[in-house]
Amino acid sequence: MDIRFTKMQGAGNDFVVLDETAGPLGLRADQYRFLADRHFGVGADQILTVRPSPAPGIDFEYLIHNADGGEVEQCGNGARCFARFVYDKGLTDKQAIRVQTQKGVIAPELMADGRVTVNMGQPRLVPEDVPFNTSGLAPVAQHHTQKWPLALQVPVDPTTVFVVPVSMGNPHAVMLVDDVDTAPVASQGPVLESHPRFPERVNVGFLQVQTAHQVRLRVFERGTGETLACGTGACAAVVAGIELGLLQSPVDVQTRGGLLTIAWSGQATDPVMMTGPATTVFEGQISIPD
Amino acid sequence: MDIRFTKMQGAGNDFVVLDETAGPLGLRADQYRFLADRHFGVGADQILTVRPSPAPGIDFEYLIHNADGGEVEQCGNGARCFARFVYDKGLTDKQAIRVQTQKGVIAPELMADGRVTVNMGQPRLVPEDVPFNTSGLAPVAQHHTQKWPLALQVPVDPTTVFVVPVSMGNPHAVMLVDDVDTAPVASQGPVLESHPRFPERVNVGFLQVQTAHQVRLRVFERGTGETLACGTGACAAVVAGIELGLLQSPVDVQTRGGLLTIAWSGQATDPVMMTGPATTVFEGQISIPD
Repeated sequence: MDIRFTKMQGAGNDFVVLDETAGPLGLRADQYRFLADRHFGVGADQILTVRPSPAPGIDFEYLIHNADGGEVEQCGNGARCFARFVYDKGLTDKQAIRVQTQKGVIAPELMADGRVTVNMGQPRLVPEDVPFNTSGLAPVAQHHTQKWPLALQVPVDPTTVFVVPVSMGNPHAVMLVDDVDTAPVASQGPVLESHPRFPERVNVGFLQVQTAHQVRLRVFERGTGETLACGTGACAAVVAGIELGLLQSPVDVQTRGGLLTIAWSGQATDPVMMTGPATTVFEGQISIPD
Repeated sequence: MDIRFTKMQGAGNDFVVLDETAGPLGLRADQYRFLADRHFGVGADQILTVRPSPAPGIDFEYLIHNADGGEVEQCGNGARCFARFVYDKGLTDKQAIRVQTQKGVIAPELMADGRVTVNMGQPRLVPEDVPFNTSGLAPVAQHHTQKWPLALQVPVDPTTVFVVPVSMGNPHAVMLVDDVDTAPVASQGPVLESHPRFPERVNVGFLQVQTAHQVRLRVFERGTGETLACGTGACAAVVAGIELGLLQSPVDVQTRGGLLTIAWSGQATDPVMMTGPATTVFEGQISIPD
């Protein structure tokens, strides 16, 4: 079967986007895997599929398949590319759309500068919600704030580090560093990722605060290793920095994959808003195995 | 600048192929790097460029750029894709072509089964030519052949392995294993790659002989780690197997990226011929930074 596709990327997270507004392609898991394969197919972190409106008040339906062929929940970088795609292809003339995903409705919005803003949901800062097991740990090392016992000692041989546990739907541990370029991402990342106090493992963020509105960030992603850009990681890092009293919304987060701007009121009941790039890389046509 | 390209792969080695027969695109190193980037560009091991005949008796000129943007010598998997491309695109009606590369003329040939045969040059088996430093090593462990002291003891803590040093223009060390699936590629590959007896380091092949005409192979490539398929590695492995009296030409080599068929007369003055797949993956159009 011959199909047309668009390759896009947002802050280095990359996607094959398929237009099914004229009818479903009916792809199987092995065909999604083929498309995502970087040597034998197109290559992408995920395959994004655009389907027509499933209900009144909703503009599109949005399917996401991982490189392993399985259907997954949304990620912020993909949602930005989705919004850019439907607008650039003339599938809608709206700059703010409502999109049905597997887990609910999202509402990405194109900005005047070409970037896209996505609601990333509410952060959760209660350690048990991350989850982070505080059992037997004294609330120590409140060296940045008296508000909460956020910075907790996590013994990592041969050193002790201070992390802020934050959930953005997935677990994050944010660590302050003087310089992300020399941060111990490769050595401490895997140790913290699998630290027994994080029962569901954890994404580890290494955050360098430059000003109250400007940071640099590297993220060691759970199950993957260091990645170019992690949308939820940028949100978690800014939430942690605001909680510590070091940052003020909005914050520009420089990742290895690109610049993300994170806004959050500081109220746990308010969502974190992420603004970032969404770029079409190339258009292609591929014959996929039947 | 908008350019059209073709993405191809041969046994898992993948290429962006550019047609400059109508005139040079004039790409800079950073533009080749952009094309090769797997997240921000198309993604490929190398960029292959087709240029018109530079001289009588030669069909095309062939440029190869690595993912770092630098111009490099040819590799067998790329030459197969080159031959497939010029025939499929109607740039020639010849099934056997002569192509000018940076290092000399190559003559890939399309087979009736759609695969392509490439002359990979003569093997070199003298240890000093690999180079492999035999100083102080007794020619021991001639457990497969009395012809030469090919299998040499290389102490790798905590074990001793037997390797056959072979040069295919680049250095290889071929090790016999019972089963490639359980072979110590990740543990012994890096140790042997940087073993002091290989002053220019070495590609390490793990060879499982199934029959005299059929083997399985995994290769730990110098400076890269394990790869899907290494053309010169397959040649070196078959040369080693023939020298050891275990294999007879032609030999089907099953790699993780696909099947390569290697033929060699057993005479060091004869070239090694490699036949393998060359597949168009997709056609695309991309806007590259000026």
